[in-house]
Formats: sequence, C-alpha cells, structure tokens
Amino acid sequence: MNSKKERTRELILNKSYELFAKNGFNKITMKDVCEATGLSRGGLYSHFAGTAQIFEAILEVLNQKDEMNFEKEMNDGMSAIDILERALQLMKDEMLHSEDSLSLAMYEYAGISDNKMMNHFNQIGEKKWTHLIHYGMKREEFKEVDVHEIVSVILYVYQGVRMWSRIVDMKDATFEAITNHIRKQLVKETMKHDI
Amino acid sequence: MNSKKERTRELILNKSYELFAKNGFNKITMKDVCEATGLSRGGLYSHFAGTAQIFEAILEVLNQKDEMNFEKEMNDGMSAIDILERALQLMKDEMLHSEDSLSLAMYEYAGISDNKMMNHFNQIGEKKWTHLIHYGMKREEFKEVDVHEIVSVILYVYQGVRMWSRIVDMKDATFEAITNHIRKQLVKETMKHDI
Repeated sequence: MNSKKERTRELILNKSYELFAKNGFNKITMKDVCEATGLSRGGLYSHFAGTAQIFEAILEVLNQKDEMNFEKEMNDGMSAIDILERALQLMKDEMLHSEDSLSLAMYEYAGISDNKMMNHFNQIGEKKWTHLIHYGMKREEFKEVDVHEIVSVILYVYQGVRMWSRIVDMKDATFEAITNHIRKQLVKETMKHDI
Repeated sequence: MNSKKERTRELILNKSYELFAKNGFNKITMKDVCEATGLSRGGLYSHFAGTAQIFEAILEVLNQKDEMNFEKEMNDGMSAIDILERALQLMKDEMLHSEDSLSLAMYEYAGISDNKMMNHFNQIGEKKWTHLIHYGMKREEFKEVDVHEIVSVILYVYQGVRMWSRIVDMKDATFEAITNHIRKQLVKETMKHDI
C-alpha cells in the first residue's frame, strides 16, 4: 500500500497544501511545488499535470477524511450530541487556524474552473450535516428544526468565518459564539445536562 | 456641490467598482481604470494615486451609505421589525447578485494591506447590528437574545453566502432560509402577525 510512488504523492499533496493555504491558488506554480518537495520537474509531472490537478487531489483527500467522520459515527450508534460536539470542536479548531485555510485558494481556483467540483464538495457538506440532523432528531436528542435552514446557516457561517478571520482580527469569543449558536439551535433543552 | 471634479471622481468609483466586482482586486491596473472611464493617465492620477486608494474610497462610500441606514431609521422611531425587514430584503438582493459582490476583491486587497481598514469596516457592521438588536429588545419587538452571538452569525453567514454564491450554484431557497433564520432568532412570536 505504502509504495514509494504513494509516499511521493503524499509529499506533493502535503507541501502543496501549505503553499496554497499561504498564497492562494493563482500565485503557485509547478516550479514552486518542485522547490518545496525537492522533486525534479519530470518527477512532479509524472504525478500531476498541473497545479489544478494537485489542488483537486487535495480537496478530494480532505473530503474523504471529512465525509467519513459522521457516517462511521452514526453507523456505530454514537449519540448525535457527541458527534455534534466533536464536529463543533473541529470547526472551532479550524476557525482558530485560519492560516491553514484553503478558502482563498478555493476562491481563486473556482475562478479558473467550472463550478462542478465546488458544487460537488458543497453537496457533500450539505448531505453530511443533513444526515446528522435527521439522525439527532430521530434519536430525539435534537429539536425538530427546519433542516435546510440550519444546514445552510452552519455551512455558510463557517465559510464566512474562515474567510474573514484571514482579513480581520477575530476574537476567540466570536468562534465560541458561533459554535454555541449552532448547539443551541439543535440540542434539546432537556438533553443539555448530558453534555 | 456637484462640480466636474466630483462627477469625475464618482465616474472613477463607479467604473472601478464594476472592474473589481468582476475581476477581483489584484488583476486590475490603473490602465484598466483609464480605459473604463475614458480618462487620461494624468486625469486619473490627479484623483487617485493607485488602485488601492480607489478601492478604499469605494469601501468608504459603501460604508457611509450602509451606516446611515439603521441610524436614521432608529432616530425616526421606525419599528425595529420594519428596519430588520428592510435589511433582510437588502441582504437577500445582495446575495442574489453575487456578481456585484466585492468579496473576492476585498479578500485580495486584504492580502496587500494591513488589517486596519477591514477591521474598521467590520466594526461598523458589528456596531450597526448591535444597535439595531438592542433597539428592538428595548422596544420589546425582539426577543432577549445573546447580542454578540446573533450579530456574529448575521455578519459571517452573510459573508459566507456572498463568497460561496460566486463559486457554487446556490438556490434562492438558501437565501430565503438564511434570512428566515435571522428573522426567527430576533422577532418575538407575538409580533409576527404584524409583518
């Protein structure tokens, strides 16, 4: 499984992630990736035809990691509140580390690609949260909410924070307030002592 | 008041707005602004030293327009619900017209500037919504909410939608769901029949 070829691919994705998070998509060239990885031009091109392909591979990996999260936990019958708490903690960590965010790169990448890939990822996020909320309502841990409404708020408030925390000084209290808001929308009052 | 100098300045700001909204900040040069306005290089430079200055002037104008909104209406004693409804309608219109959004340009501009200006604008938005919510609570039209929490959600969900509606196909129902969410957070149940 962990062949040299796969390790090289992983190295390219990791180093490129850092470059994209720091500089966005447009500024990064294949030459930058060669320098960051120590690979020759030929070595790099044998894996990827260009920065767009690298970027798409990174998004794919992130999404696979991400997608697994709730599904496995729901299949294991974990409490919806516990799954939510883990997701909110993860969101808070990500919001705190806006320097690791690919949001600028995604924005720029979207400018050169059709919307297909971004739509695909957006739908995965939508589906994932929709499942979790239905799961929590079915288990009677979550309130009976307007699922589409809450999912929209969760997805876009998170994206808004990820983006704006790069360009304004955002206080930790703001991340806290936003995750609290999501929790309050979902978790039944009677369940709150369980947390 | 409406001297030739002012009219030229307005022309520069209007034409530059279109350029920035369409292309972001980085790609636009003073030459592009000359072409869009029909001004000579000398004519343009007598108004602005560079695209950053033009961009800042645009943000300043937008903010002045924006800031006036709630303050005047609150001073006139308008109902908080009516002010909110107008603001939500405006937000919905803006979300529907993501092609007019300066969000990509702002993001890019933030990369070349210190955060001071963006912080300033962010604080204005924060203050404006904070005032309105306190006003609505005082008039007993709004619920007693955690003001910082709701303001954070409003500001960043709006920014998230503005940004993502440029890169994914967003349904009108999503804008509707988000403005509904804000309304539900604020407006007292007993006041709802008044809308």
